[in-house]
Amino acid sequence: MSQQQEVRVFAPATVANVACGYDVLGFAIDAPGDEVVVRFSEKPGLRITKVTGDDGRLPLAAEKNTAGVAALDLLKHLGMQDRGIEMEIHKKMPFGSGLGSSAASAVAGVYAVNKLIGEPLTKKQLLPFAMTGEASADGAWHADNVGPCLLGGIVFIRSNQELDIAQLEPPKNLWAAVVHPDIEILTKVAREILPESILLENATQQTGNLGGLICGIIQEDYGMISRSIHDVIAEPRRQKLIPEFYNAKRAAMSAGALGFSISGAGPSVFALCEGEESARKVGAKISEVFDKIQLNNQLYVSPINKHGVHVIEGENK
Amino acid sequence: MSQQQEVRVFAPATVANVACGYDVLGFAIDAPGDEVVVRFSEKPGLRITKVTGDDGRLPLAAEKNTAGVAALDLLKHLGMQDRGIEMEIHKKMPFGSGLGSSAASAVAGVYAVNKLIGEPLTKKQLLPFAMTGEASADGAWHADNVGPCLLGGIVFIRSNQELDIAQLEPPKNLWAAVVHPDIEILTKVAREILPESILLENATQQTGNLGGLICGIIQEDYGMISRSIHDVIAEPRRQKLIPEFYNAKRAAMSAGALGFSISGAGPSVFALCEGEESARKVGAKISEVFDKIQLNNQLYVSPINKHGVHVIEGENK
Repeated sequence: MSQQQEVRVFAPATVANVACGYDVLGFAIDAPGDEVVVRFSEKPGLRITKVTGDDGRLPLAAEKNTAGVAALDLLKHLGMQDRGIEMEIHKKMPFGSGLGSSAASAVAGVYAVNKLIGEPLTKKQLLPFAMTGEASADGAWHADNVGPCLLGGIVFIRSNQELDIAQLEPPKNLWAAVVHPDIEILTKVAREILPESILLENATQQTGNLGGLICGIIQEDYGMISRSIHDVIAEPRRQKLIPEFYNAKRAAMSAGALGFSISGAGPSVFALCEGEESARKVGAKISEVFDKIQLNNQLYVSPINKHGVHVIEGENK
Repeated sequence: MSQQQEVRVFAPATVANVACGYDVLGFAIDAPGDEVVVRFSEKPGLRITKVTGDDGRLPLAAEKNTAGVAALDLLKHLGMQDRGIEMEIHKKMPFGSGLGSSAASAVAGVYAVNKLIGEPLTKKQLLPFAMTGEASADGAWHADNVGPCLLGGIVFIRSNQELDIAQLEPPKNLWAAVVHPDIEILTKVAREILPESILLENATQQTGNLGGLICGIIQEDYGMISRSIHDVIAEPRRQKLIPEFYNAKRAAMSAGALGFSISGAGPSVFALCEGEESARKVGAKISEVFDKIQLNNQLYVSPINKHGVHVIEGENK
């Protein structure tokens, strides 16, 4: 358990739900993401000394801050809550974007502190602490952002309650084009738009597609992946929160996307594509649709990120 | 396209739904199953000349008989409906048992005729014809019995409408104990007991378990398989049609089963187990529960059948 004086980590954005995997599937992309820096200090306890990129929206009080809550939960678990630690949070992705912003902060916070104190827990063991951090922000308890942000790759969650997850190796040539239009949707609002119950027929259809997507991923069957990326539950209801959603979808599909849907609770949208060239082309077409209505947007093109959160400087290995 | 004078085939029983895979998952076992014999005849058209094991319940008219309908559908597709063919059907499994009895007849009928006429279609291409046969018996259009009966192994159905399926390699040591208690449940009744809509929360849980089961199967993770075998949709409602269901479940689980649920629409029940010895022990325990209330029952212990329908005699290769 070697200790460093300072650790800086990067936690990537994630796409949750992945069309047919409502609350059970997510993947990480290479960028954007949040950065957290931690270092030992003389003063006892965890203190957040600086937050940038948040327009003053995030609390500095550790017990009210997503990254702080996650880190405190870990420190308490280890009986180290009095250890003097300073934390800086650099938000480099928008709030309420559907890109797992609060998950990224929570994961970065707990991962950085775990590294700083000599890595007593494994990445997978950090999952419940990161979950606690994210839950403090949005009130929900689901691992479809935190899981892939922490571990990378495509993460399937059998049970959010039991935190029973499986990591799936992404097909080599699977790329994502993710576009964030500059509007904000609160996860809470996006959740409230969903019905309490759904038709059994639709549930069966969704289950078929989710299973198909997993089979397609594992068997590297891009046709099966493409045929499976359909959401009959959340997308039909949430699309109305996203301007030009169906035009963006049509643009993506006619440019050759394997599938297109809402990232998390939106407003970001994503397309899965076979290969980088296809993803770049598809991404540009989606972005164009938002441009046409003067809606500011950011495009991210990335392979599935296989590693999740990682140290970017300050590690003495 | 070599032709034989007579072909005899065996189509195995199947376990559909597999707890969390309502209408989307099924697997085949080695026995019981139906046999169909076909041979060329002078008289034009398909004629069913003999049916055994059905207590006189099955019609001899080909266009009203499951095996006949499937075979006729194939012959029409090939423009060969006037070809003289005689068919014998030997029912060797009970009706309304939840073991895919009508699927087995349909598959056996179409597979035997396809063999007899020189195998113009592949097994997978026979799927829609077998589906038509089965649908003539129970009115539903789902491939979770027909698929594994035809192809063997564990078959996942992304879409019943599109007949989009994936075959999963069964884990080497995965065995099933299937027990059929001697009561009859009509698929129609078992379907009517299901609600039209379900809670979104339950749908998500079921999706998580289905995905978990597929991951467990593909990654040979018996723990994940075991944690995934839960049905929150059909089992809680259908169990009341099966005497002693929960006692049988408890007996199976405490004897070491990975999971236990209803086979298809019931009344048969199944347990998945790791290894033959475990399956034999679990099967005996389940059987005992039915014995105790003087309910006649048959126990079948089998690895997952990898081959599905096959010729058992009369082939000249």
